[in-house]
Amino acid sequence: MTYCVGMRLDQGLVFMSDTRTNAGIDNISIFQKLHTWSIPGERVVTVMTSGNLATTQAVISMLDERMKAPVERSPSLLEAPSMFQVARMIGETVRDVIAEYKGAAQQSEGVFDATIIVGGQIKGSAPRLFLVYPEGNFVEAGDDTPFFQIGETKYGRPIIVRAYRSDMSFEEATRLLLVSFDSTIKANLSVGPPLDLQVYAKDSYEVGFTRRFEAEDDLIREVSSRWGEALGRALESLPMPEFDL
Amino acid sequence: MTYCVGMRLDQGLVFMSDTRTNAGIDNISIFQKLHTWSIPGERVVTVMTSGNLATTQAVISMLDERMKAPVERSPSLLEAPSMFQVARMIGETVRDVIAEYKGAAQQSEGVFDATIIVGGQIKGSAPRLFLVYPEGNFVEAGDDTPFFQIGETKYGRPIIVRAYRSDMSFEEATRLLLVSFDSTIKANLSVGPPLDLQVYAKDSYEVGFTRRFEAEDDLIREVSSRWGEALGRALESLPMPEFDL
Repeated sequence: MTYCVGMRLDQGLVFMSDTRTNAGIDNISIFQKLHTWSIPGERVVTVMTSGNLATTQAVISMLDERMKAPVERSPSLLEAPSMFQVARMIGETVRDVIAEYKGAAQQSEGVFDATIIVGGQIKGSAPRLFLVYPEGNFVEAGDDTPFFQIGETKYGRPIIVRAYRSDMSFEEATRLLLVSFDSTIKANLSVGPPLDLQVYAKDSYEVGFTRRFEAEDDLIREVSSRWGEALGRALESLPMPEFDL
Repeated sequence: MTYCVGMRLDQGLVFMSDTRTNAGIDNISIFQKLHTWSIPGERVVTVMTSGNLATTQAVISMLDERMKAPVERSPSLLEAPSMFQVARMIGETVRDVIAEYKGAAQQSEGVFDATIIVGGQIKGSAPRLFLVYPEGNFVEAGDDTPFFQIGETKYGRPIIVRAYRSDMSFEEATRLLLVSFDSTIKANLSVGPPLDLQVYAKDSYEVGFTRRFEAEDDLIREVSSRWGEALGRALESLPMPEFDL
């Protein structure tokens, strides 16, 4: 499994992903799921992947190769005129990769699937955030749905739904995401640290603060250990039911 | 879908269930999922069901009939010598009902499944809490896993994992469960109020406080509206990440 969240703020975009991949529960590895391409001063595109690792790696590699091979005829992410076209391009790539291996090797549904969050900004328009489905189609985040989650989304969702505000600072959003990831990691063994964080500051057109939080990171440990206590106090502040026993 | 939680406390047992059932998303009904049988002064058995409604209703009706029909040869829940035997009896009934309809009508896997939480106390032993699987086998709650959830379990799990203490009062446990149900109801349309609460006070051998919380119940509304705020303060109390942007 996987857990990634992409979030739209007034100040820009925030991305967080775990790095655990597993084939069964006894074959666990660490792979980066957050990838960024940029032309400083002109565009930044950040992608996070979930699903079959062979599929997501193939998608990332194909996107990457197109940018590097000068004779490649397919347009690259670095040439797309808009984030909408970037999302389309990624959707087509996902669909092509899935179709190739699905047709060739097996009949079982869904095994080669991949779902992708892509966000960024291209000069001339605002930062945008998309969720790309395995079928290649996609949806965009808006004011009503300002964040996307992929992978094991349920455990970490209630805290984001409750505490998200579009005017959060990047630091506040990171803290919120660390709590959401902590809840998920505690509940699902197939989601695990290290966690990759990247922020994109609106109109900066350069890759923002990027950090990997290792499992033994002081901040992660402190957030995790103090969250139980903080929740206890939050519960205390609610009205107490009254009933006769 | 469904959401039910059974919880073991030092003081006794707490049960909460939603009441929504759905066939598709456009056919929603209210059915009680919490059922109790008792011989005051001697035993109390409480059952909560999730899964296919025809299956769970058949299971409950069969258990009920056995208690009422004087010539019924199968032993009834009210005669079982221990809670372990009660759980076995329920497991057998679930398995029989599923086998009957699965064999007769269709081949598709799992559609007729039911999962059940059963708890209570029979004079001479402590209160016990079990989770019964569709296959008829079951597990018992212990100090390490003092609660069971069935149905849509993920959204409401992190708060229970974090805030549960065995020495909670019934009122505190109810407040915790209301928050857990609130998170679930906000995320999954197939879980919905009214919510049924029942507590069982250890060694009382009678049905404890029982209440139905309607959607417009003051306590539910207040818990729901104040929880967002309380979570915000809980987040504020955590250390803030520091990074250069």
